[in-house]
Amino acid sequence: MIMTTDPVTLMKQEVGKAAAGRVKSDSIVGLGTGSTTAFAIQYIGERLASGDLKNIVGVPTSFQAEVLAKRYGIPLTTLDAIAHIDVAIDGADEVDPQKNLIKGGGAAHTREKVVDSLAKEFIVVVDGGKLVDKLGSTFLLPVEVIPMAVTPVMRKLEELGGKPDLRMGVKKAGPVVTDQGNLVIDVKFDDIADPASLEATINNIPGVLENGLFVGVADVVLVGEIIDGKPNIREF
Amino acid sequence: MIMTTDPVTLMKQEVGKAAAGRVKSDSIVGLGTGSTTAFAIQYIGERLASGDLKNIVGVPTSFQAEVLAKRYGIPLTTLDAIAHIDVAIDGADEVDPQKNLIKGGGAAHTREKVVDSLAKEFIVVVDGGKLVDKLGSTFLLPVEVIPMAVTPVMRKLEELGGKPDLRMGVKKAGPVVTDQGNLVIDVKFDDIADPASLEATINNIPGVLENGLFVGVADVVLVGEIIDGKPNIREF
Amino acid sequence: MIMTTDPVTLMKQEVGKAAAGRVKSDSIVGLGTGSTTAFAIQYIGERLASGDLKNIVGVPTSFQAEVLAKRYGIPLTTLDAIAHIDVAIDGADEVDPQKNLIKGGGAAHTREKVVDSLAKEFIVVVDGGKLVDKLGSTFLLPVEVIPMAVTPVMRKLEELGGKPDLRMGVKKAGPVVTDQGNLVIDVKFDDIADPASLEATINNIPGVLENGLFVGVADVVLVGEIIDGKPNIREF
Amino acid sequence: MIMTTDPVTLMKQEVGKAAAGRVKSDSIVGLGTGSTTAFAIQYIGERLASGDLKNIVGVPTSFQAEVLAKRYGIPLTTLDAIAHIDVAIDGADEVDPQKNLIKGGGAAHTREKVVDSLAKEFIVVVDGGKLVDKLGSTFLLPVEVIPMAVTPVMRKLEELGGKPDLRMGVKKAGPVVTDQGNLVIDVKFDDIADPASLEATINNIPGVLENGLFVGVADVVLVGEIIDGKPNIREF
Repeated sequence: MIMTTDPVTLMKQEVGKAAAGRVKSDSIVGLGTGSTTAFAIQYIGERLASGDLKNIVGVPTSFQAEVLAKRYGIPLTTLDAIAHIDVAIDGADEVDPQKNLIKGGGAAHTREKVVDSLAKEFIVVVDGGKLVDKLGSTFLLPVEVIPMAVTPVMRKLEELGGKPDLRMGVKKAGPVVTDQGNLVIDVKFDDIADPASLEATINNIPGVLENGLFVGVADVVLVGEIIDGKPNIREF
Repeated sequence: MIMTTDPVTLMKQEVGKAAAGRVKSDSIVGLGTGSTTAFAIQYIGERLASGDLKNIVGVPTSFQAEVLAKRYGIPLTTLDAIAHIDVAIDGADEVDPQKNLIKGGGAAHTREKVVDSLAKEFIVVVDGGKLVDKLGSTFLLPVEVIPMAVTPVMRKLEELGGKPDLRMGVKKAGPVVTDQGNLVIDVKFDDIADPASLEATINNIPGVLENGLFVGVADVVLVGEIIDGKPNIREF
Repeated sequence: MIMTTDPVTLMKQEVGKAAAGRVKSDSIVGLGTGSTTAFAIQYIGERLASGDLKNIVGVPTSFQAEVLAKRYGIPLTTLDAIAHIDVAIDGADEVDPQKNLIKGGGAAHTREKVVDSLAKEFIVVVDGGKLVDKLGSTFLLPVEVIPMAVTPVMRKLEELGGKPDLRMGVKKAGPVVTDQGNLVIDVKFDDIADPASLEATINNIPGVLENGLFVGVADVVLVGEIIDGKPNIREF
Repeated sequence: MIMTTDPVTLMKQEVGKAAAGRVKSDSIVGLGTGSTTAFAIQYIGERLASGDLKNIVGVPTSFQAEVLAKRYGIPLTTLDAIAHIDVAIDGADEVDPQKNLIKGGGAAHTREKVVDSLAKEFIVVVDGGKLVDKLGSTFLLPVEVIPMAVTPVMRKLEELGGKPDLRMGVKKAGPVVTDQGNLVIDVKFDDIADPASLEATINNIPGVLENGLFVGVADVVLVGEIIDGKPNIREF
């Protein structure tokens, strides 16, 4: 455990710890991506090591989750070997009051949606800055698309009212490539009035694999905030 | 031109010729996949060579279309370079009376749907054996899916009433892999009551790229039949 | 166990059983692809179930091996979790007297070479029909190549004296695609005089991932033959 | 043309202009990646537009080259349509006195090697900071590898004396993914005594697609330097 006195890090630790505390023995756990989720993975590992938790198998949503789970001693499995997921813990880039999410800042939203949507209980862990009244207010909507369809999909997204931009790489010439070998279009929507409908409409554009809208998937949101310089967690 | 006296081949030639005859000069043409479409590509090339047709650019839906277009001298472009497609010519595995289609026997339906759905006019070329009263009667519905999601997607397809099967390779150990690096699940549905709804529902399952239902995409269907031992073409 | 009286199947069973019999408890086992290897996987599973064998982890070389290992109860791991492989069991398309191999009929030779070359002991299981005096006598050499480089790689292979052909798909329009999303060129060489040199030369052509020559990788070859109508196994 | 008075940018413009000036009419040109090469692409386009150059077709090595070529009006083709490349212009991360290179900072070295190695004349454009006495002095050697083989390939690279590190993404969770869907290992070698031998040895490790050593590929190196505050170009 790295000791820290930085209030933001302390807060993320507390949220991760709270989520890890909800995992029960004998369960299959979806392991998400991101800095807060990373603390949850660490605490699940510590509970396993101490004997407080028994018989846990993890399903990673990303390379990062896989590496952390191995480091903290959480046995892993794949979706081929299981029939359901008991609980998934994952972050988000935006959360609205109905617990709908935008994810995909890390270009991992497709695998995350596959795993998170299989969980009986999906716990979202975020800091207070991710809360919005309306999705699309602060964050772009990521859309994963096969390379040959980038241009027509961009045109379709414009027809839907969005301003699309191909996500370009850093430490890589050209566009960011996802773990599936696809590209990511980040779309600015001024107003996402009906997230459920937009999610389905975009997924139905030929060439789109998955977009970052998660509507009706989250069950619990744990929000970390700093109140009077101290970390505080609330749930909704 | 290979001369043939086989009535089925003659019929396919005639349907391909009829479709190729509808292409106008100065247009962008989507080039589909399959044995009948192959004749259409050949005839477009011959019309270009004879000067009957001028200023054509093709957009291939597959490796096969690309190879044939190059052989018959049709200049090619990509979707990045054009803003629309004037006419697309492509085959189908099943066609219902509303011109809805099942495609994907060649595992190429994702790229085909991207191209065909961009065309102002999409001409389907089939022989009479592909006509069905209801989609799903004779052909399985292909669903392209990312490898890590095969098992949960299969389970979802069963919940929708289908009997899913992973398409296995020939001349390749393990499953067929698509040009996008994904796998194909072939699904038997006893009854596809509402193709439009099923198309959208399946595309919205996390991990699905595209399924073989083409609803409301085809404009014209050219059907080749053998009547009294002679090829005959009708349109609907 | 499926009972059979077919001598070829009986022979494959015996070879698979012989290979499985060489696996020791507490070891990491590379699990290959093919019909004879499938029997080895089955027998390893049976030895585990009976308690004759303990503490085995498998590393599959293909989807087929993974499915069989799960069916027969062999726990699996990935190359990220282990530092070596104790023994690998895999088939081959051709074996020469120096135990050099051609593999890749199933387009899985890249992953197979990664796994087999890590094994302290690599046991090849084949029937007598796979034995050749010189590699290339009866089987084409498979070369896995990235799609954009197919044409220049084919030209290079011709300069090396080969007759290259792109492997085309069945139940898939266009070429066979490997599990890595690449294509396979099958090359006819009239005479592979120096397999070690050809293996390195081809792997050094820009755009080539891996070719099917396995030189100096195999340690033991178990050959099944039918003598007087009965299965017989010899080793070299 | 963007006007600039920044000496570094001026120098890159001059080097790009010099390389573009060597392209002759009626030739097939390999178009590389990077900021200096970008100026070369721009100048080739301007020479085409002015009529100074005629009948040029470009072969892009990357998405970036493709976008720039389209912007500046250079017609493009693919390797399937041509039998050779007349001249290629590309950058490098390190150049030694024998004109051997390290490339791959943009994770595009595989496609670059395919294109650059086909060119009758390969012109390297760099600024003086890229010149080294020995390869590996300042830049890590990028190795493109299939995902399942990352760990054993890293171990092999350590045995060869390297310090390997998986290149991690920015604007993407987990590792950088290449245009081919593979990962990149950046390797620190204290001393690359024999680049030709190391290039072949690494390419022969199972699971490696291509490494960033370009030995014996470059024909001409154009070096931009600032002397007395003014851009200067020398060739070797």
